[in-house]
Amino acid sequence: MVSGLLGPLVTTEAMRRVFADRARLQRMLDFEAALARGEAAAGIIPAPAATAIAARCRAELLDPEELARAAARAGNVAIPLVEALTALVARDDPTAARYVHWGATSQDVQDTALVLQLREALGEVEGSLAELSAVLAELASRHRRTVMAGRTWLQQAQPITFGLKAAGWLSAIERHRGRLAETRARALVLQLGGAVGTLDALGAAGPEVVARVAEELGLAAPDVAWHAQRDRLAEVATTLGLLVGTLGKLAGDVTLLAQTEVAEAAERAAPGRGGSSAMPQKRNPVAAVVVRAAALRAPGLVATMLTSMVQEHERGAGGWHAEWETLPELVALAAGALARVREIVEGLELDPERMRRNLALAGGTIQAASVATALAARLGRPAAHGVVAEAAHRAAAEGRPLREVLLEHEVIRDALTPAELDAALDPERSIGAAEALVDRVLAARRRG
Amino acid sequence: MVSGLLGPLVTTEAMRRVFADRARLQRMLDFEAALARGEAAAGIIPAPAATAIAARCRAELLDPEELARAAARAGNVAIPLVEALTALVARDDPTAARYVHWGATSQDVQDTALVLQLREALGEVEGSLAELSAVLAELASRHRRTVMAGRTWLQQAQPITFGLKAAGWLSAIERHRGRLAETRARALVLQLGGAVGTLDALGAAGPEVVARVAEELGLAAPDVAWHAQRDRLAEVATTLGLLVGTLGKLAGDVTLLAQTEVAEAAERAAPGRGGSSAMPQKRNPVAAVVVRAAALRAPGLVATMLTSMVQEHERGAGGWHAEWETLPELVALAAGALARVREIVEGLELDPERMRRNLALAGGTIQAASVATALAARLGRPAAHGVVAEAAHRAAAEGRPLREVLLEHEVIRDALTPAELDAALDPERSIGAAEALVDRVLAARRRG
Amino acid sequence: MVSGLLGPLVTTEAMRRVFADRARLQRMLDFEAALARGEAAAGIIPAPAATAIAARCRAELLDPEELARAAARAGNVAIPLVEALTALVARDDPTAARYVHWGATSQDVQDTALVLQLREALGEVEGSLAELSAVLAELASRHRRTVMAGRTWLQQAQPITFGLKAAGWLSAIERHRGRLAETRARALVLQLGGAVGTLDALGAAGPEVVARVAEELGLAAPDVAWHAQRDRLAEVATTLGLLVGTLGKLAGDVTLLAQTEVAEAAERAAPGRGGSSAMPQKRNPVAAVVVRAAALRAPGLVATMLTSMVQEHERGAGGWHAEWETLPELVALAAGALARVREIVEGLELDPERMRRNLALAGGTIQAASVATALAARLGRPAAHGVVAEAAHRAAAEGRPLREVLLEHEVIRDALTPAELDAALDPERSIGAAEALVDRVLAARRRG
Amino acid sequence: MVSGLLGPLVTTEAMRRVFADRARLQRMLDFEAALARGEAAAGIIPAPAATAIAARCRAELLDPEELARAAARAGNVAIPLVEALTALVARDDPTAARYVHWGATSQDVQDTALVLQLREALGEVEGSLAELSAVLAELASRHRRTVMAGRTWLQQAQPITFGLKAAGWLSAIERHRGRLAETRARALVLQLGGAVGTLDALGAAGPEVVARVAEELGLAAPDVAWHAQRDRLAEVATTLGLLVGTLGKLAGDVTLLAQTEVAEAAERAAPGRGGSSAMPQKRNPVAAVVVRAAALRAPGLVATMLTSMVQEHERGAGGWHAEWETLPELVALAAGALARVREIVEGLELDPERMRRNLALAGGTIQAASVATALAARLGRPAAHGVVAEAAHRAAAEGRPLREVLLEHEVIRDALTPAELDAALDPERSIGAAEALVDRVLAARRRG
Repeated sequence: MVSGLLGPLVTTEAMRRVFADRARLQRMLDFEAALARGEAAAGIIPAPAATAIAARCRAELLDPEELARAAARAGNVAIPLVEALTALVARDDPTAARYVHWGATSQDVQDTALVLQLREALGEVEGSLAELSAVLAELASRHRRTVMAGRTWLQQAQPITFGLKAAGWLSAIERHRGRLAETRARALVLQLGGAVGTLDALGAAGPEVVARVAEELGLAAPDVAWHAQRDRLAEVATTLGLLVGTLGKLAGDVTLLAQTEVAEAAERAAPGRGGSSAMPQKRNPVAAVVVRAAALRAPGLVATMLTSMVQEHERGAGGWHAEWETLPELVALAAGALARVREIVEGLELDPERMRRNLALAGGTIQAASVATALAARLGRPAAHGVVAEAAHRAAAEGRPLREVLLEHEVIRDALTPAELDAALDPERSIGAAEALVDRVLAARRRG
Repeated sequence: MVSGLLGPLVTTEAMRRVFADRARLQRMLDFEAALARGEAAAGIIPAPAATAIAARCRAELLDPEELARAAARAGNVAIPLVEALTALVARDDPTAARYVHWGATSQDVQDTALVLQLREALGEVEGSLAELSAVLAELASRHRRTVMAGRTWLQQAQPITFGLKAAGWLSAIERHRGRLAETRARALVLQLGGAVGTLDALGAAGPEVVARVAEELGLAAPDVAWHAQRDRLAEVATTLGLLVGTLGKLAGDVTLLAQTEVAEAAERAAPGRGGSSAMPQKRNPVAAVVVRAAALRAPGLVATMLTSMVQEHERGAGGWHAEWETLPELVALAAGALARVREIVEGLELDPERMRRNLALAGGTIQAASVATALAARLGRPAAHGVVAEAAHRAAAEGRPLREVLLEHEVIRDALTPAELDAALDPERSIGAAEALVDRVLAARRRG
Repeated sequence: MVSGLLGPLVTTEAMRRVFADRARLQRMLDFEAALARGEAAAGIIPAPAATAIAARCRAELLDPEELARAAARAGNVAIPLVEALTALVARDDPTAARYVHWGATSQDVQDTALVLQLREALGEVEGSLAELSAVLAELASRHRRTVMAGRTWLQQAQPITFGLKAAGWLSAIERHRGRLAETRARALVLQLGGAVGTLDALGAAGPEVVARVAEELGLAAPDVAWHAQRDRLAEVATTLGLLVGTLGKLAGDVTLLAQTEVAEAAERAAPGRGGSSAMPQKRNPVAAVVVRAAALRAPGLVATMLTSMVQEHERGAGGWHAEWETLPELVALAAGALARVREIVEGLELDPERMRRNLALAGGTIQAASVATALAARLGRPAAHGVVAEAAHRAAAEGRPLREVLLEHEVIRDALTPAELDAALDPERSIGAAEALVDRVLAARRRG
Repeated sequence: MVSGLLGPLVTTEAMRRVFADRARLQRMLDFEAALARGEAAAGIIPAPAATAIAARCRAELLDPEELARAAARAGNVAIPLVEALTALVARDDPTAARYVHWGATSQDVQDTALVLQLREALGEVEGSLAELSAVLAELASRHRRTVMAGRTWLQQAQPITFGLKAAGWLSAIERHRGRLAETRARALVLQLGGAVGTLDALGAAGPEVVARVAEELGLAAPDVAWHAQRDRLAEVATTLGLLVGTLGKLAGDVTLLAQTEVAEAAERAAPGRGGSSAMPQKRNPVAAVVVRAAALRAPGLVATMLTSMVQEHERGAGGWHAEWETLPELVALAAGALARVREIVEGLELDPERMRRNLALAGGTIQAASVATALAARLGRPAAHGVVAEAAHRAAAEGRPLREVLLEHEVIRDALTPAELDAALDPERSIGAAEALVDRVLAARRRG
């Protein structure tokens, strides 16, 4: 359903390749080839038959459109695929054709093909994450002392450094790398159980065949078939859903910093990028907006994967089918959002001068907490908070600098020397442990 | 992203046509043509320019793949489309080219094109609903007296008729027809506001142009542009989401009735349909399962449309973009599920004889409520309920017929004559007002 | 599960009242009383029994905590409620006790009680919506000419008026009023079908009893019981979900306007409101943030209601139960968000002077589209767009006023007189049809 | 919002305790006490002040209802809590009162309190999972050879053993134990950053204070504050969402096996459990239905947590607030569903005799795949599949035993001896590697 006119905004070339119809077909054929080889090795089918079958397991020998039509009737694509492959093998080697798909069921092919696609896709994601991590680390390090307004509830709050903001993004990305590794270890598992998971058609050799086919494909062997236990695939969805959430947060920060009234950051300009058909001056944060859109879409797809886990008995009657388009869509969305975020971070144009100016926008009231802290050593936290709050609100109401209003309070003049007050009013001296915290994140990253 | 290998299971030909890339392109060009004509009629642009522009608004003159690539850079497809159309017009009529897209913004084109696609798609859905309604009415009428087990909590409860079950489905479908009509009236509205909704580039003629362009396209004119007020589109999603819920319920009932152990209904058999690659005897309820899958997927897509309603200021930075693939996907899913349900209902194979046998499965305990009602007239509801409950549980535990156990109770023998007891134990006489209720639903349908 | 410590942020007093345990109990008893009266009127049970039963249908006579414990065992609250009511009636009138709950099933009581609660809650929502509509209309009217920056993709785009922004909110609210009215008409329907919807225990009088009980309760009578057809309740969820989306959009706009760097709007200040435990100067947009949170939560609850529509046969085994907490939670969330939005809109503090200043923030580049429109009359739209885009980007890059850069272009000096250029650069003269559009929305509202 | 009348169905006593208002208050006070102690140890505040503060950090000294009211005004509960605690300390020790909440921000208290509640709740879940695992292992082992119908698409497919079904459940539960351990390690982390994460008010000692407070509370110290990086909490949601999916699958299987027409399993009967107010014979699978409801609700709550991850800058304006009720609700739902599943599994009543009879329901066609496998060794897979499919469909259509129809085929009589055919038609001999697979799962569990 996804329009070629709209899709490229977020889908990467790599994901188009991994999830293309022909690629899917090939992964299903990879299963059939590995199955035949594994069964031959276990003595279940004749070795020459396996050779003959494996030799025909090439997607270019089949017609995806005809398979699609047959799939609509049959209810899944594996049945017509097996028929087509059988016919293909039979053309040259009728004996070998007798052993195509031996002992397997449709879901064995389809699930394993999906797992093979996921391995490729998650490998891409893992690589991109590592690269993003490196770029973020460089950014955090470079801007460890670049002072800017910290903002809470979308209000200026107290100074931070841009490095600390980037370190926050980085810290989350590092956790996602950990999650992804754990998920891959659990999810990249062969599906092979036969009709109902008993491997009945393979006799006593069933478990051996499972081990050999898994080895052929470089996948882990399952303890037991997972036809109706979908936690592995659903975890791929949740792990990517979590990642997309973090990417959306990062992209959201960038769009907010790029607002005309804030103007502290912008995506790299490029010809034909971010313009408007009506407004000549526009330079829209195109990539960030695409990522925010992904972050709005991923949760619904994750929820579908979770709801679909309730599958009946030995094979679901709906839940399995609901996964088919949902999981690839989510994977592509996550990979695309990741690619876009990397593009954003690499090209990010920062304006430290504007950051400095924005700190002064509200008459210096962003320093209220620092002043209160300085005062608290003398007056205690509650009293200090009260007197500064009163001054800050008056400064805001009257449009005067906080410093001026503060100096009208005798209690403040008594408590703080002018030098102490100036120190408290200086954003550069109000970034606390920002640098040390950036270092902690960078060090943790190096440790892995 | 949707695989041609998997998509046909639910997507209909009609929806593939409506949402094809080329169709989308044509709907955008329809907007540009209507815009030019409307502006010429309002005296904003020269009439010959409008004629020249409109003449080039044909999708086959543009290259969708090149537009897709440019869209990925620009952030939306309207910008490259306008550029391409301008170039096309300029080739023969440079003056006319000056007036392409006059006064409009990208979102005007994109939203209106989507609305035009929705008009077509919802028209299809409306027609299918009417046809489904007719088929269900016939089914309900035909089986008004076909007695079967009513089931609650997946336990046999008390007899119903199949007609009553079908009338329940029909009653919901009729409500969906009402909802869809209301939604269409609210949603099929032109989008035209220029950059920020003020129609600034159209001067005083703005509202007139809006009216004329709406008329050209056969859409309602908005009171004010809805660039960032997305309730109209989100309502399309919720209305279809509700419909898919009902379709899922119907399909769910069919899969449950088709269970080997129940076997009261089956989808129409057809060659190559519902088989299994491992199990020769299988006749899977393919269409019903596809509909159940749709009912698992739709809610997540609806949620995305709702979450995306929170769009910023005069045009969203993410929410709008999240709609682009989500709404067409949901519409196609709903239309596909509807087509599948019609196929199910039209081909439904019922086994009234098995229904009758299933009523006797649990030793007649399904009649417990009827017996209790008969007794209640003598003993009161609580006492009647208690004594029958005891008997029913004993019958179940000992595997004996309920009748036999009941007759061991003196209180029952005293309260009911054998004829009364037999009446209460007869499913045919325990369907209450089922027939009258079927008639009410059919009558309500005829009234519309 | 909802904490009394956290809940009050969004839940209103009215909703706490409507959905209190005792209120729910009373609504269930209202059903039992109406049932008894309706059955007496139809000659199904003795009139004195109905009188005696109805007289005991008072929540204060029952113990909610004991019922809750029994409900956990029984699987629903109706069973212990009927037992407790029966015992209560039996204490004084053993004969009447025989007729308690006659012919009804647990779901009849529970669904009808919920519908009665919904009637009350939706009535509140309807009233609040009308009041919000009035306040928004006044706001839109008052600020029809208050010029400010229109923003798209979170970038300044072109001038609008605040009145137009408010009119956009209002237009959506008016549509929600229409939706709510339609939903109420469909949803406020009695549930009464007995065990499986056949009204078996009521004999031929079933439909008459349904009509009489509906009349007693002031609800519509259903054509057929809707135990497993949940579209009515799910529609309540979707209609409110749509409303919350619009409320979130409005609240989102307010938080963005309230940013320190924008400062065009603020929630009304009040003691103890919107402060911070760390930052004395903070004045957080508390109400708007609560509404945004509601807009994040509602879609998930709507999705649950939709997923839960797939209920089995004559009563669901899970779907029905999933509604129990979900729908009241969503209703309370919507009503709370609505109350908060009304509070925001009524107390909104606007700063037209700051709006004016913000228009000049980016060197006048917000006027680029207006200048391009003025030029387009001479150069055609594409050429005009190109030359202004070039100038606007240069102005931005060099930090110079757009006017200055424009005047360096000979083509511009030739095309526009200084007066024309100044007009195009004047935000006050670049609001297009804003006022007329505000009037259209206000007029549409008056027509209803 | 959650009704005491409805909640107990799924909420356990333990979760009510963990998430009670007073417990939440105490966890916030635990943070304040640990903060004071940690700061004293780091030399930031005087040791006697810390002692005095910690001594007052007892929930019973505060009034939750008054705090709730103040929270509704302030926008969060931490602000009035800090005020109340300050006043309490000040009563006896005005000097100590100056140091309450020193250097912390509201979110530090609220997030850490939530993490402390999660530690307790997840500890419960972990314990319950271990117990469920043990019960399932026993069940799988006991029924390793209990033959029953395997079912796919809700159709009888081929025989399995009940032990294999239980092993499938167990295998998933073991993976969830792994996920939960990983999630706990990542999520149980102190929140402490001060206003914007810089620890500004703590000077150079900030990181030391963080370490000491974390140690006081037995939590991990964060590398950097995670006020706006919510992946840790969202992961708690996804991990539990995955778990609930598996629980729903298990409960779904039980409701399907408990159907009147299947009757192979039932929940343990108990007085007042699973009855009906209308149908005396009913014995509803109450616990399983509650779990299915939980599985319908959890995905929407997970989606909310994911959508809410997009939090602005250094503290979110909506996303944070959306978590407040969502995460506790989800945790309680998961813990409750888990408790109910344990109850189901422990009390599960199985009917192996009925399982055997059900295998014969469809004239032995459930053996079709086994016969085809036996034949395939002679005829090849495709031909074998074809001939058995034809026979199975004829057997079904004519209502005759599969054996009888098979014997009419000469090709079958030629290919298989009567003994071979009987073996292939014997469910007991058609369970493939079921026992070995059960053993693999049990062995993997023992290895951990």
